Amino acid sequence: MAAKGEKNVAVCNMKLERLLSMKGGKGQDSYANNSQAQAMHARSMLHLLEETLDNVDISSSGNPRLFTVVDLGCSSGSNTVHVIDFIVKHISKRFELAGIEPPEFSAFFSDLPSNDFNTLFQLLPPLVSNSCMEECLAADGNRSYFAAGVPGSFYRRLFPARSIDVFHSAFSLHWLSQVPESVTEKRSAAYNRGRVFIHGAGEKTAKAYKKQFQADLGGFLRARGQELKRGGSMFLVCLGRTSLDPTDQGGAGLLFGTHFQDAWDDLVLEGLVTAEKRDGFNIPVYAPSLQDFREVVEADGSFVMEKLVVFKGGSPLVVSEPDDAVEVGRAFSSSCRSVAGVLVEAHIGEELSHELFTRVERRATRHANEVLENLQFFHIVASLSFASTSRN
Amino acid sequence: MAAKGEKNVAVCNMKLERLLSMKGGKGQDSYANNSQAQAMHARSMLHLLEETLDNVDISSSGNPRLFTVVDLGCSSGSNTVHVIDFIVKHISKRFELAGIEPPEFSAFFSDLPSNDFNTLFQLLPPLVSNSCMEECLAADGNRSYFAAGVPGSFYRRLFPARSIDVFHSAFSLHWLSQVPESVTEKRSAAYNRGRVFIHGAGEKTAKAYKKQFQADLGGFLRARGQELKRGGSMFLVCLGRTSLDPTDQGGAGLLFGTHFQDAWDDLVLEGLVTAEKRDGFNIPVYAPSLQDFREVVEADGSFVMEKLVVFKGGSPLVVSEPDDAVEVGRAFSSSCRSVAGVLVEAHIGEELSHELFTRVERRATRHANEVLENLQFFHIVASLSFASTSRN
Repeated sequence: MAAKGEKNVAVCNMKLERLLSMKGGKGQDSYANNSQAQAMHARSMLHLLEETLDNVDISSSGNPRLFTVVDLGCSSGSNTVHVIDFIVKHISKRFELAGIEPPEFSAFFSDLPSNDFNTLFQLLPPLVSNSCMEECLAADGNRSYFAAGVPGSFYRRLFPARSIDVFHSAFSLHWLSQVPESVTEKRSAAYNRGRVFIHGAGEKTAKAYKKQFQADLGGFLRARGQELKRGGSMFLVCLGRTSLDPTDQGGAGLLFGTHFQDAWDDLVLEGLVTAEKRDGFNIPVYAPSLQDFREVVEADGSFVMEKLVVFKGGSPLVVSEPDDAVEVGRAFSSSCRSVAGVLVEAHIGEELSHELFTRVERRATRHANEVLENLQFFHIVASLSFASTSRN
Repeated sequence: MAAKGEKNVAVCNMKLERLLSMKGGKGQDSYANNSQAQAMHARSMLHLLEETLDNVDISSSGNPRLFTVVDLGCSSGSNTVHVIDFIVKHISKRFELAGIEPPEFSAFFSDLPSNDFNTLFQLLPPLVSNSCMEECLAADGNRSYFAAGVPGSFYRRLFPARSIDVFHSAFSLHWLSQVPESVTEKRSAAYNRGRVFIHGAGEKTAKAYKKQFQADLGGFLRARGQELKRGGSMFLVCLGRTSLDPTDQGGAGLLFGTHFQDAWDDLVLEGLVTAEKRDGFNIPVYAPSLQDFREVVEADGSFVMEKLVVFKGGSPLVVSEPDDAVEVGRAFSSSCRSVAGVLVEAHIGEELSHELFTRVERRATRHANEVLENLQFFHIVASLSFASTSRN
């Protein structure tokens, strides 16, 4: 039974995997141009990342001449390049301070195959070349690590066994591998009738979402448990919620469960899409509580939680004129579109997607004050290292 | 002096590196749709590749639990996926026959950052997952190796030291890292006045091209010499020529030195581009002779030439109706455009590039018989392994 279930999951995973991505390119609604907030949130957590990096055992790695760093769910903006740069510099310094000759560094940027790797690769600074090592080392514009892009789902294996020293993943693990099947199945008790997200949904829908989160994070941990070197560490950040009730998704709830939800309802009322079509769409996101997250890590059992906290991340909106309702509305809609636009377009096409986000913008503009005041993200920050029993 | 020269080269390299690529996407003139000939040529050389793979030492690799394969200059078609698949299967079989438990496999697809990695990643079959290992192993549609894309120039370092078991590179090493500077410098004795390729050029121009080839292949071998594991092997295929005279470039000469050259002259005569503009364009390709290639490998000194041969590769044109002059002309133009179109567009823009290739097609159509008869590629095939003195 379990095997059969897993196989079904694999088939559906594949569809979402081939599809899901932050909006590529460099346009107005691209992720590259709508990830300043993520950048700020990442910066505010750098001290926590440093703590994780200080936990990495730099003396006992399998191949002491190579140190390998991975960003999982890297997307296509420059945030991932900055964080890898930060990690490499921090670890280099540790080697220097310890009086150990620094190894070569290798970095893997990983995301789903539908991610815009072309744009990401254009953003990579040129590699410091051997021939001009002395002149260039000081220059900030160069990178001092080998770089590669890895297309695939982080809910499965991506790397050879025991080959990675540090895993980093920011703002990605709240993306489920799929919308739980029962949620869009009309005859199921978990059918999310009338809604496009878990926020405000019924108990059975919420359970299905939670179960999917548990299966996904469990798969993630199993895969990383095989790939991480002894002495290695993981730094994971994802959207989290402060409420125990999974149908109160906090910031994610406001982003996908209010104006976005209402805009779908507008389309239905206006006869542009059927109620069934709307109900067939669900955002595959789950912002876990600390407890949700802890349960899965404990059930997996391979990792020690060096740190597990909820961190107040601030607003996802970057606006220059907070009093300008139109700008706030546009920022809300762009933010929503940069992360969910690709899925919406796949479901109802480009034209209706445009109609939808026009309504999202209009509604957010009307509620600009409320949006600015209440749109607040919390993040789960987890620093995990190998449990001593699993160091095999 | 040398250091200063190198620095200049680095700057110019950077420009071509950010630009050069086979035509991406999946359109009529894309490389993905104009690489059937390369596929056939590759197939005809599989027995030589097998010989190289049989030279790889599978018992003494640094990390016996991981076998790493690289395709350098992979481009964005499916040829690279097929060849990696072939290599992994062949090596797997060797492990099986030797009664050694097979390692995990890791494959790197490498090309310049301007390569269309997005299209390539869409072509990758899904990874065999642990959970359905038994059911899926038989299925041909899955891959049994970890995959990553590596953006960068293979004339410099791309991978950590001693991390690669097999390097494969087909139809790429004839691309120079840059047009030799003196060739487009008006006051230089090597200025390639009136021409857009080394074919039919003057002696000094030819020398400059040859020197660039030597520097580039030298850089390639130095980098690979650091990256290859002890016991590892390289299989390299590039356009070659049978003539000793570098200004007779054989098949490449016919592709870039006749109708393509004449089409440029047409544009000049028609006043669409200036003679100077034409002379500022040169195809950065050099088809070496066996002797050219051998000299550089010997000068580097790190590798043993297990095999170095010139191989008759056939025509780059795939036509269904050889008697149809229009189809032949179109195939010639598409072939030319799929490999040089990106460079032409960067030099004279999209509109004039269209004008140019229209003329290429017209001229090739007029000479269809001659094109079909004489357009014949020769390839240099090199199988290199570590010289015993360099196994450090």
